[in-house]
Amino acid sequence: MKSDRPVVGRGAKVRAAVHAATLAELVDKGYAAFSVDAVAQRAGVHKTTVYRRWKDRESLIVDAVAEHMAMDIPDPDTGTVEADLRALARSLAHSFTTPAGQAILAAMFTGAAHLPEIAEARRHVFHDRLRRAEPVVTRAVARGELPAGTDPAELLKTLAARIYLDLLITGDPVDEALADKAARIALAAAHAGALGHA
Amino acid sequence: MKSDRPVVGRGAKVRAAVHAATLAELVDKGYAAFSVDAVAQRAGVHKTTVYRRWKDRESLIVDAVAEHMAMDIPDPDTGTVEADLRALARSLAHSFTTPAGQAILAAMFTGAAHLPEIAEARRHVFHDRLRRAEPVVTRAVARGELPAGTDPAELLKTLAARIYLDLLITGDPVDEALADKAARIALAAAHAGALGHA
Repeated sequence: MKSDRPVVGRGAKVRAAVHAATLAELVDKGYAAFSVDAVAQRAGVHKTTVYRRWKDRESLIVDAVAEHMAMDIPDPDTGTVEADLRALARSLAHSFTTPAGQAILAAMFTGAAHLPEIAEARRHVFHDRLRRAEPVVTRAVARGELPAGTDPAELLKTLAARIYLDLLITGDPVDEALADKAARIALAAAHAGALGHA
Repeated sequence: MKSDRPVVGRGAKVRAAVHAATLAELVDKGYAAFSVDAVAQRAGVHKTTVYRRWKDRESLIVDAVAEHMAMDIPDPDTGTVEADLRALARSLAHSFTTPAGQAILAAMFTGAAHLPEIAEARRHVFHDRLRRAEPVVTRAVARGELPAGTDPAELLKTLAARIYLDLLITGDPVDEALADKAARIALAAAHAGALGHA
């Protein structure tokens, strides 16, 4: 008998359950005490089901983090680049204040920071978020709000950079005021033509 | 018999020797294998001499790193803010490419990143470097090259942020091209009045 349900159904459900359990374990236990056993138990699947899809705990963490961070990106389209960039910056700043965001930050920048696969994950997650946010800049250039030749990636890096500085180095509050400042700086640099294609 | 040598002489020499040995040990062995014993041996002093001045290995590392990073800051005064900011940005980028810079980076952002005293050291070292570089901006405002009310710390944070982003996240080359870009972005934002006092 043929089922009407899509064949990917069960695989996608297992994947989602394991991802959710991975983040929950990171939040509850932290990176050092993280174990695939506990994830499997929490997700209600057998450990071998996890190892069939992810080769080790690092791959599992990286995959769950990348998926979580990617879903987190809004695609604001308010009609003005100022408001769109503010929304992106606030969403980035906010993403590190949630329990999952805090746990991810701790894993990516302290607990597991020495692992090459985590350095690679930091790059991967960052570029994925960048790519998803680029339409905001592309649309602004098309509307004539930003100089032709403005490089979307360069603008978004400038915006993110100011937020990451306080997050990783100064320890100053990562809040809406910082987000708005980061958006203002990126916009000013773009208007001045300092963020053109190299 | 009175000596003509300043009384701080020996203390300062021991301090300098222990600092140099600390950086050399970090470069050779890395943070995880770092030991006060090895530092004392390398500096040619007794272990108790080290412990009399620094309460533990973390204090010693933080102190040596802070001193090294502080000495590393130039005070460019070329007559134009463009050239001064470029010099500051290039010096910051360059500081992470030396063996000592690489070892410090590894200790501060990976090996010891989970320790509260290292997070505090990151803040301390950053603010110390910021403070030393502020005259570049103050002079530019006085010369009328930058808007009155430009906040030196905000300008320098914008400059540093773009460099730290590639250093800590994207993994893209931290070179003169990046430094010049960071200086250009900070300058454009300042000219646009986006870096004023809050």
